[in-house]
Amino acid sequence: MRASVTLDETIAERFAAIVGPRYALRDGKEIEPYITDARSRYETTSPLVLRPGSVEEVSAILKLATETKTPVVPQGGNTGLVGGGIPLVGQANAVMISLGRMNRIVDVDAASNTMLVEAGAILETIQKAADDADRLFPLSLGSQGSCQIGGNIGSNAGGTGVLAYGNTRDLVMGLEVVLPTGEVLNGLSRLRKDNTGYDLRNLFVGAEGTLGIVTKAVLKLFPKPAGTAVAYVGVKTPDNALDLLNRAKGAAGSGLTGFEFISETAMDFTIRHAANPTQPPLADPHPWTILIEVSSGRSEAEANEILESILGDALESVVIDDAVVAQSLAQQKAFWQLREDMSWAQKPEGASIKHDISVPVGSVPAFIEKADAAVLAIVPEARIVNFGHMGDGNLHYNISQPVGWDPHDFFAHEDAIHNAIYKIVGTFEGSISAEHGIGQMKRDKLAVIKDPVSLALMKRIKREIDPAGIMNPGKVLQT
Amino acid sequence: MRASVTLDETIAERFAAIVGPRYALRDGKEIEPYITDARSRYETTSPLVLRPGSVEEVSAILKLATETKTPVVPQGGNTGLVGGGIPLVGQANAVMISLGRMNRIVDVDAASNTMLVEAGAILETIQKAADDADRLFPLSLGSQGSCQIGGNIGSNAGGTGVLAYGNTRDLVMGLEVVLPTGEVLNGLSRLRKDNTGYDLRNLFVGAEGTLGIVTKAVLKLFPKPAGTAVAYVGVKTPDNALDLLNRAKGAAGSGLTGFEFISETAMDFTIRHAANPTQPPLADPHPWTILIEVSSGRSEAEANEILESILGDALESVVIDDAVVAQSLAQQKAFWQLREDMSWAQKPEGASIKHDISVPVGSVPAFIEKADAAVLAIVPEARIVNFGHMGDGNLHYNISQPVGWDPHDFFAHEDAIHNAIYKIVGTFEGSISAEHGIGQMKRDKLAVIKDPVSLALMKRIKREIDPAGIMNPGKVLQT
Repeated sequence: MRASVTLDETIAERFAAIVGPRYALRDGKEIEPYITDARSRYETTSPLVLRPGSVEEVSAILKLATETKTPVVPQGGNTGLVGGGIPLVGQANAVMISLGRMNRIVDVDAASNTMLVEAGAILETIQKAADDADRLFPLSLGSQGSCQIGGNIGSNAGGTGVLAYGNTRDLVMGLEVVLPTGEVLNGLSRLRKDNTGYDLRNLFVGAEGTLGIVTKAVLKLFPKPAGTAVAYVGVKTPDNALDLLNRAKGAAGSGLTGFEFISETAMDFTIRHAANPTQPPLADPHPWTILIEVSSGRSEAEANEILESILGDALESVVIDDAVVAQSLAQQKAFWQLREDMSWAQKPEGASIKHDISVPVGSVPAFIEKADAAVLAIVPEARIVNFGHMGDGNLHYNISQPVGWDPHDFFAHEDAIHNAIYKIVGTFEGSISAEHGIGQMKRDKLAVIKDPVSLALMKRIKREIDPAGIMNPGKVLQT
Repeated sequence: MRASVTLDETIAERFAAIVGPRYALRDGKEIEPYITDARSRYETTSPLVLRPGSVEEVSAILKLATETKTPVVPQGGNTGLVGGGIPLVGQANAVMISLGRMNRIVDVDAASNTMLVEAGAILETIQKAADDADRLFPLSLGSQGSCQIGGNIGSNAGGTGVLAYGNTRDLVMGLEVVLPTGEVLNGLSRLRKDNTGYDLRNLFVGAEGTLGIVTKAVLKLFPKPAGTAVAYVGVKTPDNALDLLNRAKGAAGSGLTGFEFISETAMDFTIRHAANPTQPPLADPHPWTILIEVSSGRSEAEANEILESILGDALESVVIDDAVVAQSLAQQKAFWQLREDMSWAQKPEGASIKHDISVPVGSVPAFIEKADAAVLAIVPEARIVNFGHMGDGNLHYNISQPVGWDPHDFFAHEDAIHNAIYKIVGTFEGSISAEHGIGQMKRDKLAVIKDPVSLALMKRIKREIDPAGIMNPGKVLQT
């Protein structure tokens, strides 16, 4: 942890002059929303929040930061879950750079299926602009109403669309990036194929703002499905769910646009705490629920026909126990609402210890068996709230406190539970952060579990690109 | 160009001792196949070809190369088209490392849809191993019977499957790489999602062996289509072809597994020089032909039904002029054979000046108009043989010599034609190498046209990862 130095006044004024006084926030109240993270887990501070309006301003800011060795923290919609977009706890001199003013949709090229946007554009605005051009931008997250594409790119965001369309990395064709020195890298390619040298783009996607600041992006668009079918399916075991997944992938190909896997406890919490009282779509509870979505480029009827044939075959082979196909768009939405409510439905049940892990898809059943046993060995009355994107091997494997416990007593087991889970993840060569990133939260854990040669190479790349160490220091890598 | 030094005998013996005398080739005749490129365009030499049998041997070789500052050139199946896998012309001391002995399929995990292979595995062997497990590995190239997956990865190979499945980059989940220092980076992830730090994998994919040697890879598998439909379609203009492409993408989604675009001259050459005499599938010639393939995860009947509905709608809207759907698997193969014969069908027509360019998909028609005019302004009687992967914006825009000319007179215009084409590519922000890479052939061109900040960053990364400059020096980047 570095010493708490505050920012020299002369330097602060030079930074402020770049964006103008209106966009240089120094007042505590004005700064508050920028330094407070989505889950209020971190106590941080910043002497100055800059809101640049152009790539030239971002470039001037980074040039000055390198010159004065001032740490900077880029921020998008401030919806991150690992403390990556807020200053490091204990670091008092970090200047924040909020990209929110640079939020234009520059153009939409439907014929090429591409869109050029500024980094501060809100995800939902991008989705709508694609929709207006009769195209789909498939990145879809709970926070889409406020997260910005620059943050999605920095964190390589995932979500429910990954199964069919890939994560943010797969949806970005080109980037404009301001390097820590202030140089502007123009990689705004709209090409589906380009083998002219090293792939620099993917170095910045998922780097969590530690290598530079993304200021523009070319995004990949897709044809809009003509129709969609959704079913709520009850199965007995994770193995059954995996079997259904591979059948559905085989039959629907990339028309399989959703496959969410939900434990009985997770579904029970959600039904009980739903904002609008709701009945479970299937009368009897099932150990596991699958929310499955099939899309067709031709018609809703075809989507339904494909989904029904998948479910019919699976019922016949006793892979699934029961299923109900949504009979209207409203019912489809209601089914998906259950999945969307799942994150906050854990709150009324008390303290929660969360994990965002991934393992090879085929190892999901074995992981669950081992992880459940390990958790219950530590806290026998713990309630395991397990749900996630099974098709990606990505589980939000969360543990809710036993009923009636004091949260502090439960959190006393947090480290033990984390360590047990991450150890099991390791035996499956899995990931301790499938989609949320490392930030400041998992940085020290990463230093222990990552392949040492990879970690050393990451550090060498960081040092080469950011020799002054100004870019979001202390995130992802230890300083 | 560096001075022609040959290899010190003591050093040569130390290299040979690593793999053993049987796998250290020093005899001119034995070395000949390794230094001769696929198109016999380069006169090169090497004092020593090593054929390691394990990652440990590759590691020891690179460690020694760094210690002795000996240049090394990794080679796969030696099918590259830009001189990337053979020594640099004029460089006499480069030790070649042929990966062919490390050719095992280590395992196939059908449930997770992954496969672990060694870098020297032949692409066709990999395709077969996937097929045996009822899965598809969709990378498909003309040279698949001899190219190796390590070379495919190093060059980020494309091919006809890119439209639906992406290029090699998109098909690789994890890599094991020996760094120039001899350190072994273990990135053999089988995870569909992993946000734990910088994406190192994509740095090595497409780096053409200039940053390290890939020794193993985890590949992504897909469900095998249950049925496929293929049609041969005549259209009037590139704009019509683009319209058909977007209709087909909309209707078939990722079920659109082929969309090849062929000019009348290219088709004419192919029909005339076909190994087995053949009739064109459509009686009348058309200015442009599209070979379109639709796959279904459920049945051949469904694939045909989807394809026929796309073509029916397009005929009705006068987007296409005529079409014939293959009535049997044999006829499907015959249609595809025309496309596969296209590359060598140019040879009997004399000298050819080739380009492997890409532009944004929507710019393909405008590119063709400008490029044709530019070529004919230089050589009015030149014959333009234009064909390629329209869905990727990637054209093999080749120019055959005028009938009756001396090839030397034609090649006198080579630079002028290249420069004219690359200038037009530049105006569309396109790529001078869509899928073949840079190697030694386009290196000096790249130095001129690449974004200077990107080029400088590539050089810094190269220097940081390979400080001794031993890895395939002079390829991609000027030394």
